[in-house]
Amino acid sequence: MTVTERPGAGHTAGVTHLRDDDLSRLDAWWRAANYLTVGQIYLMANPLLREPLRPEHIKPRLLGHWGTSPGLNMLWAHLNRTITNRDLNAIFICGPGHGGPAIVANTWLEGTYSELYPSVDRSEFGMGRLFRQFSFPGGIPSHVAAEVPGSIHEGGELGYSLMHAYGAALDNPGLLVACVIGDGEAETGPLACSWLANTFLNPVSDGAVLPILHLNGYKIANPTVLARIPEADLMSMLHGYGYHPILVSGSDPVRVHHELAYALDLALDEIAAIQSHARQGSDGQRPRWPMIVLRTPKGWTGPKVVDGVPVEGTFRAHQVPLSGVRDNPAHLAELEQWMRSYRPEELFDATGAPMGFLAPLAPRGSRRMSANPHTNGGLLLRDLVLPDIRGYAVDVPQPGVPQAEATRVLGVWLRDVIRSNPDRFRLFGPDEVNSNRLGAVFEVTDREFDARIFDGDDHLAPTGRVIEVLSEHLCQGLLEGYLLTGRHGLLTSYEAFIHVVDSMVNQHAKWLKVTRGIEWRRPVASLTYLLSSHVWRQDHNGFSHQDPGFIDHMVNKKAEITRIYLPPDTNTLLSTMDHCLRSRNYVNVVVAGKQPQPSWLNMTDAALHCRRGLGIWAWAGNDAGGVPDVVMACAGDVPTLETMAAVDLLQRYLPTLRVRVVNVVDLMRLQPETEHPHGLPDPQFDAIFTVDRPVVFAYHGYPSLIHRLTYKRRNHHNMHVRGYKEEGTTTTPFDMVMLNDLDRFRLVIDVIDRVPGLGVTAAGLRQYMTDARQRARDHTRAYGQDAPDITDWTWPGRA
Amino acid sequence: MTVTERPGAGHTAGVTHLRDDDLSRLDAWWRAANYLTVGQIYLMANPLLREPLRPEHIKPRLLGHWGTSPGLNMLWAHLNRTITNRDLNAIFICGPGHGGPAIVANTWLEGTYSELYPSVDRSEFGMGRLFRQFSFPGGIPSHVAAEVPGSIHEGGELGYSLMHAYGAALDNPGLLVACVIGDGEAETGPLACSWLANTFLNPVSDGAVLPILHLNGYKIANPTVLARIPEADLMSMLHGYGYHPILVSGSDPVRVHHELAYALDLALDEIAAIQSHARQGSDGQRPRWPMIVLRTPKGWTGPKVVDGVPVEGTFRAHQVPLSGVRDNPAHLAELEQWMRSYRPEELFDATGAPMGFLAPLAPRGSRRMSANPHTNGGLLLRDLVLPDIRGYAVDVPQPGVPQAEATRVLGVWLRDVIRSNPDRFRLFGPDEVNSNRLGAVFEVTDREFDARIFDGDDHLAPTGRVIEVLSEHLCQGLLEGYLLTGRHGLLTSYEAFIHVVDSMVNQHAKWLKVTRGIEWRRPVASLTYLLSSHVWRQDHNGFSHQDPGFIDHMVNKKAEITRIYLPPDTNTLLSTMDHCLRSRNYVNVVVAGKQPQPSWLNMTDAALHCRRGLGIWAWAGNDAGGVPDVVMACAGDVPTLETMAAVDLLQRYLPTLRVRVVNVVDLMRLQPETEHPHGLPDPQFDAIFTVDRPVVFAYHGYPSLIHRLTYKRRNHHNMHVRGYKEEGTTTTPFDMVMLNDLDRFRLVIDVIDRVPGLGVTAAGLRQYMTDARQRARDHTRAYGQDAPDITDWTWPGRA
Ligand SMILES: Cc1ncc(C[n+]2csc(CCOP(=O)(O)OP(=O)(O)O)c2C)c(N)n1
Ligand SMILES: Cc1ncc(C[n+]2csc(CCOP(=O)(O)OP(=O)(O)O)c2C)c(N)n1
Ligand SMILES: [Mg+2]
Ligand SMILES: [Mg+2]
Repeated sequence: MTVTERPGAGHTAGVTHLRDDDLSRLDAWWRAANYLTVGQIYLMANPLLREPLRPEHIKPRLLGHWGTSPGLNMLWAHLNRTITNRDLNAIFICGPGHGGPAIVANTWLEGTYSELYPSVDRSEFGMGRLFRQFSFPGGIPSHVAAEVPGSIHEGGELGYSLMHAYGAALDNPGLLVACVIGDGEAETGPLACSWLANTFLNPVSDGAVLPILHLNGYKIANPTVLARIPEADLMSMLHGYGYHPILVSGSDPVRVHHELAYALDLALDEIAAIQSHARQGSDGQRPRWPMIVLRTPKGWTGPKVVDGVPVEGTFRAHQVPLSGVRDNPAHLAELEQWMRSYRPEELFDATGAPMGFLAPLAPRGSRRMSANPHTNGGLLLRDLVLPDIRGYAVDVPQPGVPQAEATRVLGVWLRDVIRSNPDRFRLFGPDEVNSNRLGAVFEVTDREFDARIFDGDDHLAPTGRVIEVLSEHLCQGLLEGYLLTGRHGLLTSYEAFIHVVDSMVNQHAKWLKVTRGIEWRRPVASLTYLLSSHVWRQDHNGFSHQDPGFIDHMVNKKAEITRIYLPPDTNTLLSTMDHCLRSRNYVNVVVAGKQPQPSWLNMTDAALHCRRGLGIWAWAGNDAGGVPDVVMACAGDVPTLETMAAVDLLQRYLPTLRVRVVNVVDLMRLQPETEHPHGLPDPQFDAIFTVDRPVVFAYHGYPSLIHRLTYKRRNHHNMHVRGYKEEGTTTTPFDMVMLNDLDRFRLVIDVIDRVPGLGVTAAGLRQYMTDARQRARDHTRAYGQDAPDITDWTWPGRA
Repeated sequence: MTVTERPGAGHTAGVTHLRDDDLSRLDAWWRAANYLTVGQIYLMANPLLREPLRPEHIKPRLLGHWGTSPGLNMLWAHLNRTITNRDLNAIFICGPGHGGPAIVANTWLEGTYSELYPSVDRSEFGMGRLFRQFSFPGGIPSHVAAEVPGSIHEGGELGYSLMHAYGAALDNPGLLVACVIGDGEAETGPLACSWLANTFLNPVSDGAVLPILHLNGYKIANPTVLARIPEADLMSMLHGYGYHPILVSGSDPVRVHHELAYALDLALDEIAAIQSHARQGSDGQRPRWPMIVLRTPKGWTGPKVVDGVPVEGTFRAHQVPLSGVRDNPAHLAELEQWMRSYRPEELFDATGAPMGFLAPLAPRGSRRMSANPHTNGGLLLRDLVLPDIRGYAVDVPQPGVPQAEATRVLGVWLRDVIRSNPDRFRLFGPDEVNSNRLGAVFEVTDREFDARIFDGDDHLAPTGRVIEVLSEHLCQGLLEGYLLTGRHGLLTSYEAFIHVVDSMVNQHAKWLKVTRGIEWRRPVASLTYLLSSHVWRQDHNGFSHQDPGFIDHMVNKKAEITRIYLPPDTNTLLSTMDHCLRSRNYVNVVVAGKQPQPSWLNMTDAALHCRRGLGIWAWAGNDAGGVPDVVMACAGDVPTLETMAAVDLLQRYLPTLRVRVVNVVDLMRLQPETEHPHGLPDPQFDAIFTVDRPVVFAYHGYPSLIHRLTYKRRNHHNMHVRGYKEEGTTTTPFDMVMLNDLDRFRLVIDVIDRVPGLGVTAAGLRQYMTDARQRARDHTRAYGQDAPDITDWTWPGRA
């Protein structure tokens, strides 16, 4: 046994002398999994090669990724060995999710696949189905999608494996998360920023992550960067990130078996040592977590040369190495030879089942990585204990009073959510928890941070329920991993920058959509965003910070997944958040400001309003029992404020005008019920918004969204929507709404312009409103702030 | 002078003994810039402190970021020293773009600001304006936005500085790009993946990037991770990324001046050595580029303690350290003392201009970083030489013939674009250039890769016009940097995963929008996306790879910025791309498939069709000279194919039905002209789409977008849109369109259901179509591919 230590940097694995039976079992498992992988990619009949391969055994469309698979199979086999030896509680995250057939193969070998999909049993017949269904119409996807047992990570869009792994490990002190990272994947931004997630992992209260960088050298058509920089640099980089990288490198299977067994044992020993040291009350030193660098050929054991061109160990092994199998007899023969090289007759018995001698390698029951309940988080999910929101409500003696900071009040409730759920709720954010005024949470918890902490740091500690890292990607990925393993959480971010994770939430929404159709997948807690510091209140940071488009992005997702809430005040925010944290399998987007705002509804009314999702504020309008001349609709806190101020002006200057005020909290209510489960039936919509009166709709985001949601409604042609039209800069809050024609004066003008008959009679008021806008603007230019008549306006409380 | 080498890792800067006059000039510049920074944040009058500060001199809203500014100011001063000493051609990229007032201060000191904004001259009066305008309504933004001379990087959304820097350096062998990276920013994914961009920088043909990691220890409310891991780890990490990190650390200004001068000299010597070595025909060794780690206190030289709480050197220095200045006399006094600590009387003369002795530190003319033409790329922009597309066209003897792979043909044209523009056009992609069938470009160029290259690598070389890295972020960031410095390029990506850069393109679009209002900014080349492997042809990869929502995302941007094209075939793709590469200041999104597709238009017709943006295909319909019974509209290659096949069915089975076929290339034509410059005037729209006939619209993406674009049109209630409704998996291409009800049979059913009178008479055909769908599906389940009558269908060519 040789061990090469590289001082200050990496560590080359030595060689464990595996016992012969261990070695042969590991190798047999590996060959079996490789065989099953190739079978899935190519065959639709003759799974055990009982007869010579003929073109009609071959699928007409060859879809799948071979290149990554042999490495994945080798890792799965070896992890099984250590799980069995050490009775580990482990899960597997497959960064190169395109290696779907490999993971499916292992889950079938372990029996889990057949338990969940009985028709794909461990028989020749089942193997035939297994092969045929893969990437086949009506069959299963090509990736490690939700259909695959043991998966919480599809791996289709590359980059999120390591953050999912860390998220899964949080608050699971007994869990080991093995995470394979493609060397191509490692070039992505999200993956690159994940290395330092070890800063947020506590060796006492959290589990362990074992990153395995799969340095097979290539991505699709190019070598990978990490495979081509000097190996010493790579080791130095990983060391710098706080890891102890253990390098296993080679192309001779036997040698790699020995080295990998050694490396895994070493890594697991180190993890055990770190954990027991820390758990015995250590010195709090930042641990140096082990990791593995596995440098093996891409497409290992596959065809070496095809049509005279090298394939094994090159990028050409990425997908389907032999592509002409159906028409080209030479390719067909090579495929047969390749498959037979795994010696299937030694691996599967006459019935097609895996040979009995393989069984001891597979862990039992839920110790199997394919059956670990952490990968079907809903199984482990326990409801949150949620404090009664009524205890946190703002007392609203009359509409508009008092001014309150919605998120600050929410923070107090969240503090108690955290207190009541110390093991299953976390708050994530890119360093904006305090600035979003949720600081009350720090009365009961800290920010988890496992690097150096200084005196004077603000609520920073080795453990804590809050994770703040300046990466929306990492926040999202950690939360996803946390939720998918059966816990709860909340992500708070600036509204504009949540677009950073557009593509990530796409994938999460797709995952949720698919799981709804998979019977054995149990519902998980929803992914909830609190977007504060929203478009209207980034006046100090300017245009780059002003973007309400995330709502639009989410509306394209499947209706059964997406929920969007725009609570107009503090009590409605409390009620909304209470609802969101109870929900399952959704993505909830909650947009709410942090600035002082009038409180419109007492808690009882707020709860009813949120239950309805939208409603007429009778106390604000003057159309009681009659038909209004105009409907003033609003969604969002700032638009609600401007609408109320406009209604005040209207009632003062046009007292005979009958105004109806409608506030929308749940945006999806606007859609027809055919489009969204929350959609309001047409008769109700028509009753509220009328079928023939002008509707002046003040909306938080891009106006087109309201049109999009309502274009099928009868009164749609009467809807006049104001919202953000991409006009922004550093200025005052009221200047911002004026720049986008969402201000109270403009809303009054809209009413005058839309209500038949007002044009001439209210021309004077219109002119006065125009002047009021100019005056308000001039005031900002002269004094640098909004005029007092704007900022001091309060709802007169006629009601 | 002491130099501490850390073997194998970092390097602690030694001390250059700056000459006294150099030191005092550097320090004076620094103090002047700091003074001007504080002035911008706080003052609206009394800029030179000629009288004691009074509350009315203070802005009512204190908006700005002090913490990062002293470090930026110090760096700018020292870079000026080296620029002047070495006659460097350098630009400055400010990662922490919230340090806007610091950069503005330096540009004012250099005179550039006043040259571009004459009313803000270098006088007391001008200084007053400079202070007042900052973050003031009607004034300038708080960030290093487009308004700031010398900026190509707003820095509002953090993470993109280093990729912009590398993009700027490409093909600019004489340029030095100094890039300050916030230590918070360094936690983001995009920044983390940028370190390795040095793999794509050639020391001969590209310029140099000098990364400066600004380790001020904090982000908003938290310490940064990189500041709290062991320093040796940080050095090891940066070393592993291929850099030689030079550490400058301290809080004593004089010492830091000496050390920083030393460090910059050392770094620039190393850069010079790398370049001259390489340019004299070196060994092709991967260079170890120098970089600087600057560890200085956040909010350095600001208030040490405020209200008993430490501020300098803590996160509390991030924004406005003294917040109560207007109301709290103690704060006011502290502010005055702070400002006077810079000794303004030594820095500005009686007129308010910078003292003459500062002048030698500022480089002259366009050597000033604030006036370097590379930061106003339009100044340097030269048109591309574009080969005549007619030479590349597919010959189309009759509509539908031949089948062609649009991107493959485009690749040939791009090859010649590259050949004709060897110094100013680049192609970027996340390893999909070949898979998107643009491989012809490799006949004339390679993939630039400055790490190890092996025999058998495919067109990999130390220089080349193609950059492939598995990071959509990095591709986007490099291209942005390249475009903003006056060059041209193209990004090709899978359609689904371009969402990865949603937030980045937001910021680029905002930048472009703002520059349109800045007279001195010259137009730059458009950012063009070629999205191939689109939603309909990711059938082999499955659901995670299926998402057409990027178009929707872009439609929210300002209309004058966004262009969206869906060319239906090869010749229209050529014409579209030719147009895009000539355009300026846009973001062009081109979606086009790579699979064999019928060619509908010869080059002449294709060019006319693209010029119009949409048109009636008279040869495909049978409504000549009359009013159609139905309009079959389509946008996108797959929808066009399905529409044409549906029209074929209609003409075969309902020959008396008058069908009009309309194809849309330029999606923005659908909007009213009031909404978008490309919008079709209502009379034209009404003429083409009729005002009263059903329109069955087959669209590439989410159907709601077509409704959104057309809801103001008279015939909108008659529009029936089919498109992607988020139903996907691994299956056949035709099964994909069936899953989403976009298939030819469903379109025929839609016609039957919509055209008055057909319901009863065509009931038999309707039933036949339903059966045809079922048959098509059954075929896929049985054979794993689409039925021949589907795949072999061709347009009958009745015309
Ligand atoms: C974000 C993203 N961009 C592009 C792709 C397209 N893609 C699929 S596989 C692959 C190469 C993956 O290489 P690597 O991570 O090394 O995996 P392996 O070599 O193990 O197959 C790419 C670029 C993707 N899946 N995700
Ligand atoms: C993507 C993104 N997320 C969040 C923010 C909010 N934000 C503004 S400044 C800042 C801290 C920046 O810290 P650092 O990069 O260290 O800059 P410095 O310390 O020099 O101010 C944060 C989180 C942002 N601007 N961009
Ligand atoms: Mg790889
Ligand atoms: Mg910092």
